[in-house]
Amino acid sequence: MRLVRVEVNGKPQWGQVEGEVIHFTQGLTGARTGETTVLDGAKLLAPAQPTKIVCVGRNYVNHIKELGNDTGDLPREPGIFLKGPNALAHPGESVEYPSWTQNFHHEGELALVIGQRARHLKADEALGAVLGYTCGLDLTARDLQKTDLQWFRAKAADRFCPLGPWLETNLNPADVRVQLRVNGETRQDGRTSHMIFDVVQILVYITKFVTLEPGDVVLTGTPEGVGPLAKGDVVEVEVEGIGVLKTQIV
Amino acid sequence: MRLVRVEVNGKPQWGQVEGEVIHFTQGLTGARTGETTVLDGAKLLAPAQPTKIVCVGRNYVNHIKELGNDTGDLPREPGIFLKGPNALAHPGESVEYPSWTQNFHHEGELALVIGQRARHLKADEALGAVLGYTCGLDLTARDLQKTDLQWFRAKAADRFCPLGPWLETNLNPADVRVQLRVNGETRQDGRTSHMIFDVVQILVYITKFVTLEPGDVVLTGTPEGVGPLAKGDVVEVEVEGIGVLKTQIV
Repeated sequence: MRLVRVEVNGKPQWGQVEGEVIHFTQGLTGARTGETTVLDGAKLLAPAQPTKIVCVGRNYVNHIKELGNDTGDLPREPGIFLKGPNALAHPGESVEYPSWTQNFHHEGELALVIGQRARHLKADEALGAVLGYTCGLDLTARDLQKTDLQWFRAKAADRFCPLGPWLETNLNPADVRVQLRVNGETRQDGRTSHMIFDVVQILVYITKFVTLEPGDVVLTGTPEGVGPLAKGDVVEVEVEGIGVLKTQIV
Repeated sequence: MRLVRVEVNGKPQWGQVEGEVIHFTQGLTGARTGETTVLDGAKLLAPAQPTKIVCVGRNYVNHIKELGNDTGDLPREPGIFLKGPNALAHPGESVEYPSWTQNFHHEGELALVIGQRARHLKADEALGAVLGYTCGLDLTARDLQKTDLQWFRAKAADRFCPLGPWLETNLNPADVRVQLRVNGETRQDGRTSHMIFDVVQILVYITKFVTLEPGDVVLTGTPEGVGPLAKGDVVEVEVEGIGVLKTQIV
């Protein structure tokens, strides 16, 4: 099932997508209200209201290589960093190229949204804590990521996390294709089966240290092919079985 | 004025402290309801409901020295990192010594809570965005801070940010004493006038990159004297003009 968050008369409302129609629901998980609208032209919102966005860095071997980092000694544990809710941007929403970076990079990723409070998850219960999957764009000021001790400016600035277009609740995240295009040209093309730590391992690891709340977002890392963006670029993140998240850099 | 958040019949409620009495208010900034309770014995809650906790690292020269970092080249910009709301702990609440660190450190700090949405603050409007000041304890897994690329586990785990006991709205943060005691013995004793970046500079810097929301918490860095904690330790953070935040490590 596809769960969308839509702005209707200035207010956010959840719904279910069926073909080209959105059936509105009472809250995220409630019954259908009977009201519908057409998907095409609806103003989609980021399909999550997180208390935090938990991200995995360096989770694909070929991405570690392209950043010039040593792969002789691959990470033995996921490398985690945080963004705040201020980083969210909606599907289709434009993101300003920040004046304070000279190397603004795209990283397309499989994202997931938590459905129930989760702490100390065991491997066999990890996927049960996931409400659904979506596309994430982990925008990165690569120059500042290299010079700053922590990645606050590089990763967590306003609108550095476009998310959407909806949540797909019926997806096996073990082996789906993750692509990113800039102005129609493919720049990243990987499969989640190439992750160093898979979704189950990521969730077990994160919840050793922090409690995940319903709505919290997890970004699972990016495959190789990251690169610089320019003003005017149209970025599309496509995850197989989910859909396309489109963002324009202005 | 001192603003407290108190648990009453299982529900959080805001109030104003006058002497030994709490006068409950309608919300954080509303009028008094006429109901009161005695401060002594009231169950105080962390006086903020943040969307994010923004922290400054290495903001006192002598703390940079004691960590063994080079001070020949002092930071030219504040070094910022994030905790999520999961990190909050209430005044008087116990914090478990995590099983996964062998070097759990205390860092006592001046904390502030934002009163209104703030973005691109200018120096002369920065303090106007602050609702009030309180005491913060930036708990740190020092061993993992040294080995991990980003400080997720080291700084952002559950309950790694005790906060309280209340918000003091009437404080000049430029030069107040910040002390930390362990089992009654003074371990940290500094003054905010020794900060490398003062509160105004910190707020101007942070809001260049992220929007601060009402309730967001900023930790301003710790003076020298950080050190390891043991199970059973009682930690007190005292900031002049505010009060004492007490936390037991269990």
